[in-house]
Amino acid sequence: MLGAGTTLKCAGECWEMPVPAVTLQTFQMQMRFDGLLGFPGGLVKPSEESLEAGLTRELQEEVGVPVAVTADDYVSSHLAPAPPCLITHFYTKKIEEAELIDIERAAVATAADHGLEVLGMVRVPLYTLRNGGGLPWFLSHSFISNSRAQLLEALQRLGLVPLRALEEAVRQADVRRADQGEPH
Amino acid sequence: MLGAGTTLKCAGECWEMPVPAVTLQTFQMQMRFDGLLGFPGGLVKPSEESLEAGLTRELQEEVGVPVAVTADDYVSSHLAPAPPCLITHFYTKKIEEAELIDIERAAVATAADHGLEVLGMVRVPLYTLRNGGGLPWFLSHSFISNSRAQLLEALQRLGLVPLRALEEAVRQADVRRADQGEPH
Repeated sequence: MLGAGTTLKCAGECWEMPVPAVTLQTFQMQMRFDGLLGFPGGLVKPSEESLEAGLTRELQEEVGVPVAVTADDYVSSHLAPAPPCLITHFYTKKIEEAELIDIERAAVATAADHGLEVLGMVRVPLYTLRNGGGLPWFLSHSFISNSRAQLLEALQRLGLVPLRALEEAVRQADVRRADQGEPH
Repeated sequence: MLGAGTTLKCAGECWEMPVPAVTLQTFQMQMRFDGLLGFPGGLVKPSEESLEAGLTRELQEEVGVPVAVTADDYVSSHLAPAPPCLITHFYTKKIEEAELIDIERAAVATAADHGLEVLGMVRVPLYTLRNGGGLPWFLSHSFISNSRAQLLEALQRLGLVPLRALEEAVRQADVRRADQGEPH
């Protein structure tokens, strides 16, 4: 599963920004240069290319292999409430395990952005362990913009995690974040 | 830079557990199967092997290449306050950029634990961006056991981040974690 998005600046020029993720009953996210977790992607200029073409281009730069994204892979759009007021267009793409492994290898071997915009790629654990680990602990990390909400929406829409388990994972993650927020 | 540690169970059998990290003025950490960030490593049985031999073995499994750790690479030991009361022995190892890239590639190509115990490896941003991103945001993630403290100790001891910048990054990370802990 590979998901991706695009963003439209709400003022001035129309820049579009793609974003993605990968799986095998897992999603793929990345550690960004700013230390936050997010999906691959970037700004797209709609006057020069379609959202999908821009996202495909950004994926090539960030994961190192050509992953063709089409309008059929579109999931949702979201206007960021804070400046620079980007609209993120989110896409997901189902891929085979062999493709996932190709992407993981290319991301560190040939991707132009490795070590610069991207500090590493990680699979998202879609399970909950007996001790509470797995998806709930993963959701307690720090994410860029609305990428955590995009992840949750995609997991629900694609049926990758049962709704009840997803709600419980979010609840546990919020408890953990509240605990972490206390001085220590 | 590659750091690693080992852990000694405080009751019953003596199991030792190694842990690591990598750089090029960056540290390397991993996304664990339980959704937390941490260093590579694992349990070591001192009656069967030295801490360093056990850590070298665990590194082979988790990063896919032989990284020989010696007593000279030792940094510190720490007793976990909660059960199972492991003592983590932390090691760091300075490596060249070419070795770092070899490790990143092997970690997804040949490491036995990839996709199982390890969901991905990430470089730690050792800088602070103008918008506050970088190390401060990275430190606001969720870490296993004392691995965040181990990271901070290593960055200080090795002089990779100036003390003043490190203290400010921790302060900002704690503010961010407190904000994230609020219901949303």
